[in-house]
Amino acid sequence: MAELTKETIMLTANGLFSKDGVREVSIDDICRKLCISKKTFYQFYAQKEDLVADVVTYNVKRKKAEFEKFVEGKNIVQILKSMFALVNKKKTIDRDKRMVKDIMKYYPETFTKHAEDRSKAMHQFFVERFREGMEQGLVRTDMDVDGIQLLICIMHDGMADYLEGDHHFDWVKVSFKSLTAAFEDIVTRVVLTPRGFAEYSSLEKKS
Amino acid sequence: MAELTKETIMLTANGLFSKDGVREVSIDDICRKLCISKKTFYQFYAQKEDLVADVVTYNVKRKKAEFEKFVEGKNIVQILKSMFALVNKKKTIDRDKRMVKDIMKYYPETFTKHAEDRSKAMHQFFVERFREGMEQGLVRTDMDVDGIQLLICIMHDGMADYLEGDHHFDWVKVSFKSLTAAFEDIVTRVVLTPRGFAEYSSLEKKS
Repeated sequence: MAELTKETIMLTANGLFSKDGVREVSIDDICRKLCISKKTFYQFYAQKEDLVADVVTYNVKRKKAEFEKFVEGKNIVQILKSMFALVNKKKTIDRDKRMVKDIMKYYPETFTKHAEDRSKAMHQFFVERFREGMEQGLVRTDMDVDGIQLLICIMHDGMADYLEGDHHFDWVKVSFKSLTAAFEDIVTRVVLTPRGFAEYSSLEKKS
Repeated sequence: MAELTKETIMLTANGLFSKDGVREVSIDDICRKLCISKKTFYQFYAQKEDLVADVVTYNVKRKKAEFEKFVEGKNIVQILKSMFALVNKKKTIDRDKRMVKDIMKYYPETFTKHAEDRSKAMHQFFVERFREGMEQGLVRTDMDVDGIQLLICIMHDGMADYLEGDHHFDWVKVSFKSLTAAFEDIVTRVVLTPRGFAEYSSLEKKS
């Protein structure tokens, strides 16, 4: 057997958490999977909370790297196109995974900290891409970038809440498909110039 | 003194609640204002909750009548224009009044019921105006009415939460002016046809 490292424990926990959520998976379960004793486990992690924090940090880094690769070399039109194509392929928004839900519920501080960091990073990323897009003639120069960007974030998160049934608008029945199509419609019409919008639509036909 | 009616009590309570909130105003305060005994009060209302329910019903009806008068004889372009003009004149969104906050907090069932009725009525109202606008060539016929309408509601409420500081995006600093301008920008660009948008802009110059 390979030498036991903190990373091995963390990756094993990540695998189990992803499958069954954080609450359901005990330290015993993790030890069993690794064929180690609890005593050995506690040499690496003093408490489950620390392990959860490491798992969250790992996933945040991984998702960040994935996202950077995903948008690399793309202009704002291509980024929006790829993101909406990805959303439309799914039947739900990522956030409803059990692990994320459990962390939100049982480790709210860890969750809030990372969610805030992620929101800030995404906000910054889009503000920069919008500025670039303006120079390229693809993004409207006459829009209030901060206001629009915030409303897009509010819409995105409200949409995710709605789809999870956790919203006071749940008396309106709108399908996932309608909602994401409407979201794409709003974002592209508000952000892009006629030239940007034409470029966006031409990508539509190709894909 | 004029004859004491249930309505007099309700209107007096409404006046006090509007000023100081529901929590701060006791039945004693209401009796003092009306120069009546608590015994007399209880002949009309068995408990404060019933009085609150009547006050809410009264305000809902009043606001509904106000809104109907406000939009009477207007097409969708004129309705949007007047609504945004009204919002832009304010420095905050209506919802942050103390009475409403107290009802939300201490009488959640009463609040939820009415908020839901109001949301449904507004949704229905706008869906109908959008359909009319489509026939008049002012509203895009190629949009998903239900999806767009829901996202506009989500945006509106998320915006109100943000302005009250009750939102996880409160690390982004966006002014009321920027936010409402962005909201107007989004709604008009997404809902209106080029002709509708031109008509909207021409109203801008006149007002």
